[in-house]
Amino acid sequence: MASNDTASSPPAVEWIGDHNGHLRLIDQTLLPTTLRLVECRNVETVWDAIKMLRVRGAPAIGIAAAYGVVLSQQAGLSKTSHSAATAARAAADYLATSRPTAVNLFWALDRMRAVIDEHQADPSLPEKLLTEAQAIHVEDQAMCRAIGKHGAALIPDGATLITHCNAGGLATAEYGTALSVMFTCQDEGKGISVYADETRPLWQGARLTAWELQQRGIPTTVICDSMAAHVMQTRKIDAVITGADRITARGDAANKIGTYGLAVVARYHNVPFYVAAPSSTFDMQLVDGRDIPIEQRDASEIVAPYGNSIAPDGIGVYNPAFDVTPAELITALITERGVIQPVTQNAIEQHFQHERALEAK
Amino acid sequence: MASNDTASSPPAVEWIGDHNGHLRLIDQTLLPTTLRLVECRNVETVWDAIKMLRVRGAPAIGIAAAYGVVLSQQAGLSKTSHSAATAARAAADYLATSRPTAVNLFWALDRMRAVIDEHQADPSLPEKLLTEAQAIHVEDQAMCRAIGKHGAALIPDGATLITHCNAGGLATAEYGTALSVMFTCQDEGKGISVYADETRPLWQGARLTAWELQQRGIPTTVICDSMAAHVMQTRKIDAVITGADRITARGDAANKIGTYGLAVVARYHNVPFYVAAPSSTFDMQLVDGRDIPIEQRDASEIVAPYGNSIAPDGIGVYNPAFDVTPAELITALITERGVIQPVTQNAIEQHFQHERALEAK
Repeated sequence: MASNDTASSPPAVEWIGDHNGHLRLIDQTLLPTTLRLVECRNVETVWDAIKMLRVRGAPAIGIAAAYGVVLSQQAGLSKTSHSAATAARAAADYLATSRPTAVNLFWALDRMRAVIDEHQADPSLPEKLLTEAQAIHVEDQAMCRAIGKHGAALIPDGATLITHCNAGGLATAEYGTALSVMFTCQDEGKGISVYADETRPLWQGARLTAWELQQRGIPTTVICDSMAAHVMQTRKIDAVITGADRITARGDAANKIGTYGLAVVARYHNVPFYVAAPSSTFDMQLVDGRDIPIEQRDASEIVAPYGNSIAPDGIGVYNPAFDVTPAELITALITERGVIQPVTQNAIEQHFQHERALEAK
Repeated sequence: MASNDTASSPPAVEWIGDHNGHLRLIDQTLLPTTLRLVECRNVETVWDAIKMLRVRGAPAIGIAAAYGVVLSQQAGLSKTSHSAATAARAAADYLATSRPTAVNLFWALDRMRAVIDEHQADPSLPEKLLTEAQAIHVEDQAMCRAIGKHGAALIPDGATLITHCNAGGLATAEYGTALSVMFTCQDEGKGISVYADETRPLWQGARLTAWELQQRGIPTTVICDSMAAHVMQTRKIDAVITGADRITARGDAANKIGTYGLAVVARYHNVPFYVAAPSSTFDMQLVDGRDIPIEQRDASEIVAPYGNSIAPDGIGVYNPAFDVTPAELITALITERGVIQPVTQNAIEQHFQHERALEAK
C-alpha cells in the first residue's frame, strides 16, 4: 500500500523540488473539516508551524525541522559558504526552541548540525543538507513500517484497542507508530476495532486519529479521555497503544498529556500498555522521566475551545502538553528494531547494543 | 452566610409564589458567560429542563421534579380532586422518564406520590404538594450544610483538592455536596485550593465548579480531565472529593463520567477519595453498582462542542453520562449524618439504622 493512498490526501510533510524548493505541510489544526496546505519557504514559517501544531507528532516535527534547516540556505543569504553554514546553524538553534519535549526534534537537528560541521566549507552544503533531511524522512517511513510489523505480533485477532492522541501517519513520515501497529493488524486481516480518546485540549484523537482510522476502514469509536476507565471496566479491552515524544534510558516515556492516567487505569484493569516509537525517540542521556522538560501551553487551549469561553474570566488554568509514564507501567516498548519487554534500563541498553553490533558487522 | 450571596445570583432552583406559582431555574447550560433564568409553568418545561441539563445535579433535579408535580395542578385541569390526583401521578411518572441514573429524582417523586396517595380526595392537594416539595427543598439545604461540616473535618489545613463535575450550590438547594465540604473549609479558614476537572463533554467543572469556587474566593485551577493523574504525580494532592448520583447498599457510587478513572488514579497515588452525598442518593434496593442504569447521551455532545465538528462525519461515538466507582476505591462516604469509613455494606446499614433509631426516640 503506497504512502499516500491512506487518506487520499497529501502526506503530512513533503519537500517540493530540489534544494531551492520548499516544505509543504498539512495544517493539522484544521483537520478533519478542512484540508489546507501550508507552504513553508523560510525558517520562521517552519518554526511557527511546529509551535502552533500545524505539524505535530514527534517524528514529523523532527522531519519538518530538518527541512527547515535546508530553507535557511535560501532567500537573502550572501553567497559565501561561511554565511551558509552560519545560517544553517542559526536555523537549527532557532528551530530547537519551537517545542521542548519531543526529543526527535533535537535528534534530527543534531543530524543536520553534523552535516553542517562536515560540509561547512563546501559550496554544495545546501544539497548536502537536503540529502540528510530526505534521509531522515525516508528512514522514518521504514521505521514506521517496522514498528507496525513488530507491534502487530503482540495483538490478538479481533482485538479491541484504545489509543490516545495521534501517533499516526500525520505524526510521522507515513504509517505512524501506534497507528502503524493498527494499520498492520488491519493489513493482516486481524479485524481489530479501536476506541480513540478525543485528547483534550486539542482533540488530536477525535480530529486526526479517528480520521486516519476511518480512512483505513477500521471500526473506530471516539470517547472523551475520561471514559477510557469506564470502557475498560465494562468491556473487554485487549491493549492500549500510544506513541511517545521522549523515552529515557530506563524506559520512562513522555507522551501527550493524559497518557499517564491511561497507563494507570490500564494497569488497574490488567490491560497491556504498549508504547510504540522509533529509536530516535530515545534519549539515552536522561534516565529519570521526571527530568524530561514538560511544555506548558496557553490557557486558552483549555478554556476557550474554538473561541467559546467555558470558564469564568480570571480563573487559574494549568496546561501541561505532556506527562510521563514510568517504565513500570509500560508492558512493552515497540521500536523499529523489535519489542522491549519487560521495560528495564538493561533491556533497553541491550536492545540498542544488539542493533549496533549488527550494524558494525 | 445566606443562601444566595454565594454568587450574587439567584438560586439554581426557586419556587415563586403560592401553589399557583411557578418554578424558576438558572439555565446552567449557559453559565458562566450568560445568567439566564428559565420560568417553568408546566410539567413539560420542567422535564425538558432536566433532560437538557438546564437544571442538573442529583439533589437539584429531585427538587425541580417535585416542583414539577406541583405544576401539574394548574392550567387546564378540570377541578375535581380525582383529576387533580390523576394529573399529579401522571406528572410524576412523566418526570421520572427525564433522566435514569440519579436516584434522588425517583426518591423525590416517591415522596410526592405518597402525598398524592394520602390526599387524593382532598381539594387542598395542590397546597399539600407544594408543602412537600418545599420540605424536600429546605431539607436539602440543611443536608448540604451538614455534609460540609462532616466533610471538612476530614480535610487538613492548607489542603489541595481535586474535584470532578459540579457538586455545588448549582447541583443542590444551596451549598452543594462536594463543594459544601470546600466552602465549609473556607468558612473555617483552612486555606484550601482546588483543581477543578473541566469535565467533558459538557464542562460542568470548568463552567460551574470553577465559577462557584471563584465566587467564594477559593484559589482554583481548571485542568482537563486527563491531567488529574499528572497533577497527582507531580504535586501534593490531599484528597479528591466528588458528589454522587446514586450509591448502592454496598457503597458503589454512580457519578459523572470520569469519576471512576479519577478514583483509580487517586488510589494509585494513595490520595484519599471522598464521595459526598445526602441520604436521598442511596438506593438501598441495589447492591451491585453494575446494576445502576447508565444514561447514554447524544454523540453531538462529544463531537460537536459549541457546534464545531471535531471528528470526521460518520465516526462512532460512545457517550455514557455516568460511571460507577466501586466501594473499594472510596475512602469514605460523607452524608448529612456523618462519615462512613471504611465503605462497606455493613457500615452503610449501620449508618442509616443508627439514624433511624435516633429518629424513633
